[in-house]
Amino acid sequence: MTLEKDINQTNEYYLESNQAVIHKKPTPVQIVTVDYPKRSAAVIREAYFKQPSTTDYNGIYKGKYIDFEAKETKGSSLPLSNIHEHQIEHMRAVQEHGGICFLLVRFSSKEETFLLPANDLFSAWDRQFHGGRKSLSYDHVNRFGHPVPFRFHARVDYLSVVNKLYF
Amino acid sequence: MTLEKDINQTNEYYLESNQAVIHKKPTPVQIVTVDYPKRSAAVIREAYFKQPSTTDYNGIYKGKYIDFEAKETKGSSLPLSNIHEHQIEHMRAVQEHGGICFLLVRFSSKEETFLLPANDLFSAWDRQFHGGRKSLSYDHVNRFGHPVPFRFHARVDYLSVVNKLYF
Ligand SMILES: [Mg+2]
Ligand SMILES: [Mg+2]
Repeated sequence: MTLEKDINQTNEYYLESNQAVIHKKPTPVQIVTVDYPKRSAAVIREAYFKQPSTTDYNGIYKGKYIDFEAKETKGSSLPLSNIHEHQIEHMRAVQEHGGICFLLVRFSSKEETFLLPANDLFSAWDRQFHGGRKSLSYDHVNRFGHPVPFRFHARVDYLSVVNKLYF
Repeated sequence: MTLEKDINQTNEYYLESNQAVIHKKPTPVQIVTVDYPKRSAAVIREAYFKQPSTTDYNGIYKGKYIDFEAKETKGSSLPLSNIHEHQIEHMRAVQEHGGICFLLVRFSSKEETFLLPANDLFSAWDRQFHGGRKSLSYDHVNRFGHPVPFRFHARVDYLSVVNKLYF
């Protein structure tokens, strides 16, 4: 199961059990041509994937705004080029305004998922422009991040980590 | 200018002036076929518009989660059928979790925009199943909603109304 599917399932469970209202944002698409066949639904005939200007997920938990990006890697590190500058800027703005903000990283070969607080992501991001690594290594994430438990209903139970870190 | 464009411009201004981080969610699209031409970007060749399961806009303002839907009508009332049950359920959940939630309605022929708090929308929504009107009339919105001022930068300055109502 991909990280995205696991998170979507987890969010459904959080919603049904009335713990939080958190959704994945739709994939941003630039629509160019739409056909309107008679008696049937409009068909998009030409469209392109757009670079996301914000993150994948946001919502509300215990009255607080929560916002995060999710990334998966098969290797032993996550290239920072997988995250866009716009997304970092968005996360900085969220953090400034008092939101809860983080990155969920899964190392799929190890079947481990971590919550990396936005501040640590920002440090790693900024360091890459001053001779630092251009990726988040497993060791780094393991050291500065927090393991996210795998549960039956909450397959990536990130709110259990959020509870400890932010409340 | 459409309501959506006005709101997007307003949100950009709010973001640049560091007042709030509020974005429109991308239009939900069900992608069926994607072409991957050599040396150029992936092209979506068949896709369909999906019914939105949440609202158009969300984000953070003064540390609080904010979530709203925007609707425009040329007539003298807004049919409640323009809003989907899923969206109402989403708004109820947001409200329960302590978020700020409302509908922005523009009567374009009158060039007037109102903020209608979610609770009033819920009452009107529920009443339609018990013999009530199946639309939000201008008179109703004018009476229970709050006029949103038009300003040069903040073309639909809804945060000025949010300030009065929720803070
Ligand atoms: Mg992602
Ligand atoms: Mg709308």
